[in-house]
Amino acid sequence: MAAEMKRYEKLVHDIAAAIRSGVLASGEKLPSVRQACQDYKLSPATIFRAYYELENMGLIRAQPKSGYYVSNHAVKQLASTNVPAHEPESTAVSISDLVFSILGAIKDPGTVSLGSAFPWPALFPLERLSRSMAHATRGMGAAEIVESLPPGNHGLRRQIARRYLMCGIEADVDSIVITNGASEALNLCLEAMTKPGDLVAIESPAFYGCLQALERLQLKAVEIPVDPVQGLDLDCLQQMLEQRPIKACWCMTSFQNPMGVTMTAERKQALVALLTRHQVPLIEDDVYAELYFGMQEHRPAKAYDDEGYVMHCGSFSKSLAPGYRIGWVLLPQRFKREVERLKVITSLSTSTIAQAAIADFLQHGGYDRHLRKLRVRFEMQQHQYLHLIARYFPADTQVTRPHGGYFLWVALPDHVDTLQLFHQALQQGVSIAPGPIFSARHKYRHCMRINYSQPVDADVEQAFRTLGSLISAM
Amino acid sequence: MAAEMKRYEKLVHDIAAAIRSGVLASGEKLPSVRQACQDYKLSPATIFRAYYELENMGLIRAQPKSGYYVSNHAVKQLASTNVPAHEPESTAVSISDLVFSILGAIKDPGTVSLGSAFPWPALFPLERLSRSMAHATRGMGAAEIVESLPPGNHGLRRQIARRYLMCGIEADVDSIVITNGASEALNLCLEAMTKPGDLVAIESPAFYGCLQALERLQLKAVEIPVDPVQGLDLDCLQQMLEQRPIKACWCMTSFQNPMGVTMTAERKQALVALLTRHQVPLIEDDVYAELYFGMQEHRPAKAYDDEGYVMHCGSFSKSLAPGYRIGWVLLPQRFKREVERLKVITSLSTSTIAQAAIADFLQHGGYDRHLRKLRVRFEMQQHQYLHLIARYFPADTQVTRPHGGYFLWVALPDHVDTLQLFHQALQQGVSIAPGPIFSARHKYRHCMRINYSQPVDADVEQAFRTLGSLISAM
Repeated sequence: MAAEMKRYEKLVHDIAAAIRSGVLASGEKLPSVRQACQDYKLSPATIFRAYYELENMGLIRAQPKSGYYVSNHAVKQLASTNVPAHEPESTAVSISDLVFSILGAIKDPGTVSLGSAFPWPALFPLERLSRSMAHATRGMGAAEIVESLPPGNHGLRRQIARRYLMCGIEADVDSIVITNGASEALNLCLEAMTKPGDLVAIESPAFYGCLQALERLQLKAVEIPVDPVQGLDLDCLQQMLEQRPIKACWCMTSFQNPMGVTMTAERKQALVALLTRHQVPLIEDDVYAELYFGMQEHRPAKAYDDEGYVMHCGSFSKSLAPGYRIGWVLLPQRFKREVERLKVITSLSTSTIAQAAIADFLQHGGYDRHLRKLRVRFEMQQHQYLHLIARYFPADTQVTRPHGGYFLWVALPDHVDTLQLFHQALQQGVSIAPGPIFSARHKYRHCMRINYSQPVDADVEQAFRTLGSLISAM
Repeated sequence: MAAEMKRYEKLVHDIAAAIRSGVLASGEKLPSVRQACQDYKLSPATIFRAYYELENMGLIRAQPKSGYYVSNHAVKQLASTNVPAHEPESTAVSISDLVFSILGAIKDPGTVSLGSAFPWPALFPLERLSRSMAHATRGMGAAEIVESLPPGNHGLRRQIARRYLMCGIEADVDSIVITNGASEALNLCLEAMTKPGDLVAIESPAFYGCLQALERLQLKAVEIPVDPVQGLDLDCLQQMLEQRPIKACWCMTSFQNPMGVTMTAERKQALVALLTRHQVPLIEDDVYAELYFGMQEHRPAKAYDDEGYVMHCGSFSKSLAPGYRIGWVLLPQRFKREVERLKVITSLSTSTIAQAAIADFLQHGGYDRHLRKLRVRFEMQQHQYLHLIARYFPADTQVTRPHGGYFLWVALPDHVDTLQLFHQALQQGVSIAPGPIFSARHKYRHCMRINYSQPVDADVEQAFRTLGSLISAM
């Protein structure tokens, strides 16, 4: 639970957040330990521990006989773009060839997978999950196979409903449908809301899985710009809703993939109000929800869904059990029947045993304890990766500073071609996710997404060195 | 392995088959034990054991001081229909409401589920599977999560390829894609081969999952009659292929659901040749393949696929692990890329742990031993259920006698309405699968499918008594 965060962790988080946001500038001196004790009303041991962690994260450095200073390495934060008042065309999507050629190339286990979408698997309690699995299947009666048919395992749905309640969302257990990961949930929702040729509002840049889903269903993308600080451009969305017969909106309001940006509560609320006014369903992809930094989870747009237009898709693949393929969707009453039926038709049930194992783990396995460790780790690693970018990439590189998740969105100098960089880097054992796979119109050629879930070691450092020299040579 | 069948079991099977096919008629006397010893070159103990089993199956009865006789209960076998030389129209499919209202009604655990599509779960080695699961996940490295991405767990695909080899099909491990049950495999193949509005040749009657898939993808059904003895009407199919732009054919060549009929090897071969000539892909649903009676598996149409037009879909859900949701498709080279990509887009991976558990079980768990027991049981239960039908249903009821699987297709007198019967029976705690859910045009109103996988007990007998009186009252 967030409330269990230790004192020194809270201090680490607060100072790190201040450095991320620029409140504490590069080179600035931190208060002395004695001063900090007074300021924060904490013991010297707690302050020492916090400074020690911040130093490990590369965020501050100790200067002998002088004190602690904010490190100089801070890279430029990707600034709010001045979104041009252009009117996006709708686009028939054709992205799969590009995405598959890129994903196919990075399956080599020898590659440092900065381009991967998966969290680093060694960070997950696979042993403990396996015990949950054994425990759950031992007690499993034959009848559970039928009982786990859609909407899915009742115990699991109850646990999920309980987590919704923790962030203030009253979720009816029977409105939750368990799916084969969030991918299936998102695809089912999109398929249920549209027919071929329909227009769908999506983000730009967008998760390529969203682009592929549109391509599969022969839908047209209306790309709404995502600002690296504000998130989805609501003015542009409003304009499009007024002008075009948009049938659905698919977006991520927290820790957006690939940019990492999180919309404020006010903007989430405004998004829901806007879509509700136009009676357009929102397919909310919230798979990184549990990976927030600090004390406070970010409530999803679903929290403001008074009229029942939001389908909220979640997953355990990023936060607990990659490979188990358990996701879900929380459906408003009006869409429940259609989506649940589509689930039955396309893949019948979700693995009974995987459902039971996760239900067992949620009940007995210490999910919150695991999450707390994972969040602290990802926050620390983000700083380490920013440090590497500052060290090896050109000075005018701009990077986002997400408050959760495990992706950085890196804007390189304009002349850099990340598709070319992708191929060159792969030959040297490094993968990246090049910008154009995140756009229906193959934009963002000078951008890339970096996965920072792998703990930094000599291989990771070497990967950044390699990328750095390839970029310099361009 | 089939070769391990014991002598008495073989004799049981041979005599049962002779009774099923009418070679041994109702009331006919069986050879005495002494005579049988000479005829079959077996010991008296083996003959006694076999006769004992046949008596248990209700197939023969002992007449004191006289000998053994074929029981009188044999119900009429559903005869070859004289397929009218009509030209089927293509039909836009709208079956889901009907199917869902019926499936939804039978989830009550108090119901005797003769209408279920699932095999009776208590017949499966759930405990042993759970040990396989524990074993497999204990040894699972974090890297396996990525390695289990489509096409899927390599060990599992190797085991499946080995089973193909056992029935003479050389299956390249890399041409097998693991899916969330066969449902997903079939849906992916159909989606990859078609676009909305296309015509697809399907069986009549057909598995309702097939009808639902067509409805979902907005395809039109060209229904080809299935003869209860011969299987799919190849002349009709040929005519349709010549006259209509059919884009794919979906059918079951062995133990067809719901009729249970199996095409001969020659007819399977002819089917593949016909489709190949027209360059129309065959989506072969072969989920009951392992549930054959007797010594010899039935090779699928895929075995005759020299040119690479057959996508062969299989599953462990009917034969080993209901609820694990592991199926697969064996793809010819020409369709491999498209189907595999569609799998990645729609649901990404199949549960890593379920894949690993089944791979482990196939290697160590005694799959063939389990199958041998299951086949003998289903064969015995088929006879018991035929006995119940003969006892409680009207005399002019006709029934199929499948050589495998666990479904009977029952044709009641013409005036009986099985939709009405369904609702009446459900109120008395019995479910059936009414004929109209197996037809795009809601035909077969006097027919129903009966699942005979549940061992006969007082509840099952009472269910037949209930059905019998409801039918009589109509």
